[in-house]
Amino acid sequence: MRRTRFDRAPCPIARTTDLIGDWWTPIVLREAFFGCRRFEDFQERLGVSRATLAQRLGRLAREGLLERVAYQTRPARYEYHLTDKGRAFFDVLAAMWRWGEDWLFSSRGTPVALIDRETGEDVHPLVVDERTGRRIDLRRLGVRMRQRPPRAQGGGPAPP
Amino acid sequence: MRRTRFDRAPCPIARTTDLIGDWWTPIVLREAFFGCRRFEDFQERLGVSRATLAQRLGRLAREGLLERVAYQTRPARYEYHLTDKGRAFFDVLAAMWRWGEDWLFSSRGTPVALIDRETGEDVHPLVVDERTGRRIDLRRLGVRMRQRPPRAQGGGPAPP
Repeated sequence: MRRTRFDRAPCPIARTTDLIGDWWTPIVLREAFFGCRRFEDFQERLGVSRATLAQRLGRLAREGLLERVAYQTRPARYEYHLTDKGRAFFDVLAAMWRWGEDWLFSSRGTPVALIDRETGEDVHPLVVDERTGRRIDLRRLGVRMRQRPPRAQGGGPAPP
Repeated sequence: MRRTRFDRAPCPIARTTDLIGDWWTPIVLREAFFGCRRFEDFQERLGVSRATLAQRLGRLAREGLLERVAYQTRPARYEYHLTDKGRAFFDVLAAMWRWGEDWLFSSRGTPVALIDRETGEDVHPLVVDERTGRRIDLRRLGVRMRQRPPRAQGGGPAPP
């Protein structure tokens, strides 16, 4: 079944949904963050079918979150390395981690914790407003349409 | 096709994926955050099929992110209100918004912006470590298994 596509939507949430709504994709990215690079390693760790894994890695490479890097010739073999765009996606996984940790486990808590390997301290992702450093107040949150510069291609008035 | 379930996984990212991997679900929640409560309004705004929308709203209610509240009897009609668990999910959408804004639009930027309705200032979600207030340093990030208290039910040694 062809799903409704969100990848040209005006809303950043919708566009991101188009990518992570592919079942398995956030989990594949999680493994990449924890050091997985080779097809066989992803497959072994996740127990996902080869066809699904190939499709997900292929899309993540096409979308620029992973980069295919040859590590062997004859036969050619590739590793999947996170790009800057892929690394930046960690923030989404971190927010998912935090919400899941807070709301999807019993009072015994999660069996795993994120830590800072240098200090040994737990790491608790938190979403804030970059300007204020405080949590976003939903009661005050709104959306506005941005003023956009006119397109440069002919027809319109010249910019001042 | 039956998909692999992640809802009992030990990892909070996997559990959250089980929920938002349902195509449309993040978009349905986005509309709830922007004030949508009634089936017909979701349907009109999103253009999603009634069957898909009913399934998504039903699951979000069963999982406790939305609460069904009767607003009319004969015939009974319900609104879907965000719960605390649902409101907390905004952080995941906010992280998706930010990543999408940073990486999925051309240099002309997004046509929409989040704002603080009281000050008029733009709101830019950012994921930080709650303890330090700084972005999470991926090079130092690790995972540890948590020590768990022994189960209270018989057999084991008594706690000290």
